[in-house]
Amino acid sequence: MKFKKRKNLTPEAIDNTTEACAYEGVKYYPVFTSRRDGATNFSMRLFEIAPGKSTAKHKHSYEHEVYILSGDGFLLLDDKKIKIGKDDCFLIEPYEFHQLIGGENKISFICIVPNREKIQPD
Amino acid sequence: MKFKKRKNLTPEAIDNTTEACAYEGVKYYPVFTSRRDGATNFSMRLFEIAPGKSTAKHKHSYEHEVYILSGDGFLLLDDKKIKIGKDDCFLIEPYEFHQLIGGENKISFICIVPNREKIQPD
Repeated sequence: MKFKKRKNLTPEAIDNTTEACAYEGVKYYPVFTSRRDGATNFSMRLFEIAPGKSTAKHKHSYEHEVYILSGDGFLLLDDKKIKIGKDDCFLIEPYEFHQLIGGENKISFICIVPNREKIQPD
Repeated sequence: MKFKKRKNLTPEAIDNTTEACAYEGVKYYPVFTSRRDGATNFSMRLFEIAPGKSTAKHKHSYEHEVYILSGDGFLLLDDKKIKIGKDDCFLIEPYEFHQLIGGENKISFICIVPNREKIQPD
């Protein structure tokens, strides 16, 4: 068993360039990953996006499952801009273009992805 | 993309008997599952446990990744009883005996599991 408290997590540079989240105003916290924690199938990450900042608009071969913990912002999905806030959840499917954008209050969310060895890019 | 709001989720009976969570005082909400939402690799579920109630003590061949959204309670892991609350996260590894127990305030958490077709029991 691995046990962590959010307050003790430390932000890191994201090292998966396909994620394209290493931008000013975006904090990435690995919670459980295959490499460090021995997670078998999927990894949990926590992100915080400052007001008005955003991830890159990007797509990839694997899905995201996201749960918004606090704050507000927008999900840009293809050409749709969807307002998001606390307790919203979404599944972004493989190859969907997406971008997370901070709103008026810092938005934080967890985002689960399959582990790298499970990812089968085209 | 699938988008859901927590307030619109409805509790369901859990139909995976290995999970053993269908107990009085334990509410199970599927958020994203392979069968209904086309989630490729893993499923997100939300649980609420009333004060003093608990899941069964159980184990299984696959991992859990858990994020506590609110409330407080205990994680029983083998013979250890660990106090848990908002913003605690844990990875329960395959075949670890575990039980979630409600504390003074209703505890709610998300729990991610691999999809059934990814599970390879002994």
